[in-house]
Amino acid sequence: MGGRTVTVLTDFGAGSRYAGEVRAVLGAPSPAQPLRVVELTHDIRRHDVRQGAVVLRSVVRLFPPGTVHLAVVDPGVGTARRGLAIRSGGHLFVGPDNGLLLPAAKALGDPEVREITQPDLRRPQVAPTFWGRDVFAPCARWLALGFPFPEVGPPVPDPVVLAEQAPRSEPGQLVGEVVAQDPFGNLATNLPGSWLEGLPGAVRVRAGSREEVARRVRTYGDAAVGELVVLVGSDGFVEVAVREGSAADRLQAGPRSPVLLSFEP
Amino acid sequence: MGGRTVTVLTDFGAGSRYAGEVRAVLGAPSPAQPLRVVELTHDIRRHDVRQGAVVLRSVVRLFPPGTVHLAVVDPGVGTARRGLAIRSGGHLFVGPDNGLLLPAAKALGDPEVREITQPDLRRPQVAPTFWGRDVFAPCARWLALGFPFPEVGPPVPDPVVLAEQAPRSEPGQLVGEVVAQDPFGNLATNLPGSWLEGLPGAVRVRAGSREEVARRVRTYGDAAVGELVVLVGSDGFVEVAVREGSAADRLQAGPRSPVLLSFEP
Amino acid sequence: MGGRTVTVLTDFGAGSRYAGEVRAVLGAPSPAQPLRVVELTHDIRRHDVRQGAVVLRSVVRLFPPGTVHLAVVDPGVGTARRGLAIRSGGHLFVGPDNGLLLPAAKALGDPEVREITQPDLRRPQVAPTFWGRDVFAPCARWLALGFPFPEVGPPVPDPVVLAEQAPRSEPGQLVGEVVAQDPFGNLATNLPGSWLEGLPGAVRVRAGSREEVARRVRTYGDAAVGELVVLVGSDGFVEVAVREGSAADRLQAGPRSPVLLSFEP
Repeated sequence: MGGRTVTVLTDFGAGSRYAGEVRAVLGAPSPAQPLRVVELTHDIRRHDVRQGAVVLRSVVRLFPPGTVHLAVVDPGVGTARRGLAIRSGGHLFVGPDNGLLLPAAKALGDPEVREITQPDLRRPQVAPTFWGRDVFAPCARWLALGFPFPEVGPPVPDPVVLAEQAPRSEPGQLVGEVVAQDPFGNLATNLPGSWLEGLPGAVRVRAGSREEVARRVRTYGDAAVGELVVLVGSDGFVEVAVREGSAADRLQAGPRSPVLLSFEP
Repeated sequence: MGGRTVTVLTDFGAGSRYAGEVRAVLGAPSPAQPLRVVELTHDIRRHDVRQGAVVLRSVVRLFPPGTVHLAVVDPGVGTARRGLAIRSGGHLFVGPDNGLLLPAAKALGDPEVREITQPDLRRPQVAPTFWGRDVFAPCARWLALGFPFPEVGPPVPDPVVLAEQAPRSEPGQLVGEVVAQDPFGNLATNLPGSWLEGLPGAVRVRAGSREEVARRVRTYGDAAVGELVVLVGSDGFVEVAVREGSAADRLQAGPRSPVLLSFEP
Repeated sequence: MGGRTVTVLTDFGAGSRYAGEVRAVLGAPSPAQPLRVVELTHDIRRHDVRQGAVVLRSVVRLFPPGTVHLAVVDPGVGTARRGLAIRSGGHLFVGPDNGLLLPAAKALGDPEVREITQPDLRRPQVAPTFWGRDVFAPCARWLALGFPFPEVGPPVPDPVVLAEQAPRSEPGQLVGEVVAQDPFGNLATNLPGSWLEGLPGAVRVRAGSREEVARRVRTYGDAAVGELVVLVGSDGFVEVAVREGSAADRLQAGPRSPVLLSFEP
């Protein structure tokens, strides 16, 4: 079966030395079998905890129980904010206490949250600017190698929860926000894909300050080149796209932009 | 010997979650030995099937028979276009039926082409926008784990072939096109490197709308800083470069730009 | 214990095909155990040998003796510049003779430097533009698989040493330079972090042509959003940063910019 898997999600940039230093710590020689490291993404928008939380939640189901998920989007690194380890549905999560981990953990079960205080799990020197390398990556590695979860530290009754702007389905409109922009310029929203069912074949999309009619399609290739469309993205949520173009540029929108889909009810 | 190798070539961006999701599927725990995954590139220009085909063809020779090559540059994802598995020269290829795979397969032997229809190879839910994750990556993985190639689906007698602008060697000029631009701004062409033999030490290069004299050199370091040169690139084709600068910026050229090298015959 | 580790540091870009080709060569099937490859970074600034040397030196301590470090920032590729293998403190280094490897090797011990001349270590065809793939990666791989270091080639008594602008601590000022800019826009300098001890709580920072007062903090989160600060970075050197912003943009500075920290002595 090989060793356990550790996934990695950060805002470091795939080619940056910070990503490399985390790889180095995770890849340290093991007494037991080597870990398998799966890098989910290093391209979370800098400091965008919400986007990190959304991506982690949607990707986590690709992995079996026993997987350890290391996530570092951590603008408060080195301050009083705590470091957390969470267990839920047989998965383990390691990262900062800023709301990044909890949505994914909740999607898998009933999260058990602990603060990482066990000093043996850290690297000998902890840089206050790089807990990803010195605290979180070693903790993820040791958990994957079998370190008992309850011994990482005391329970945390009050982990930070992201204030969430819940999407709303109202007569004649869907109200949500952009949660991520992919490298193609497609805009992922927080509107559940199922909400598109029963809507007309074309809707008005407002994102940022621009508004335009978009056709509902099943996939990008059903659109004409340059056509603005709405569809259900690969994570099950509504996505706004331009075929072989950038919806982000066309609508001047990006992460956090409000999104309004309006139509004849 | 370790498990079999799966290579990955996409236009997803190295740090994007899409690359991560493909890694996740390929890295799922295996009953047998784990696969070795070698990421060739995620930086094919968005939707540039031709560039993907050129890069795949030139890189494929680095691998031994038995390797499975997963390639996803797929603007028609989710439409009627087929998914293909190809066997050639002992290598296997998996990806969309849009011309991406065939040049590499043909370079290795006589390709045997099949459509991927076997439902057991897919993920339970197939997102119409992400066959890379839900159809192609699982198929590549199963083939690497030993699933018999003939059982992926029926033979395809008419796979899509990229219309190719064959390069031409004429008296006093070589006519081709730019196939790829690397991160340094070097322009790779489809002109065979051997065509430079016997040419004078300097030629006129026209790419896009600009024309300039370029010296023939063996390697970048033979040029003066900022000098425009032509040389044989590491894939055996003619390359246009500026030492410690960008030929793409200098000539305002990029993938698909026509290239003309002219000289006294 | 698994096989030996090979680390990789380049200026190729993480998603580029050049990084992929190096992965391909390192990942070739092995008679013995597979190698573990840890990619440190592919985002060294193009041709910035000095930045590569600084990053390699600071990261190398994360690895145990026996590790092989492959580093390719090589503007002189294919010219008369030599290829080197270096042994120091039980680590091995492979790359061009341009000063890239020596600072890291010296940090670990007393370097033993050899030129790579052994023809069996190369790929059958060596492209003059891509020693990374055809000379350095195979050499690193063979050394990791146990090829005896003394047999790579003859000793080199005079390896290239980077002219270094040593940082200076003077009454009322620290004088150094920016050695790297990270993806967040933070500016890493060559000023030892310990030199900040005993300084006042705020200093004047000049980098490039701009000058501004910066507060000394322990970590980014101690600053107000948008505040310019100086702190000890995760590699132990002085760093200039803007919380949730870019110090590089703010000061119009980047790698090689001179840095002056001035204060009441």
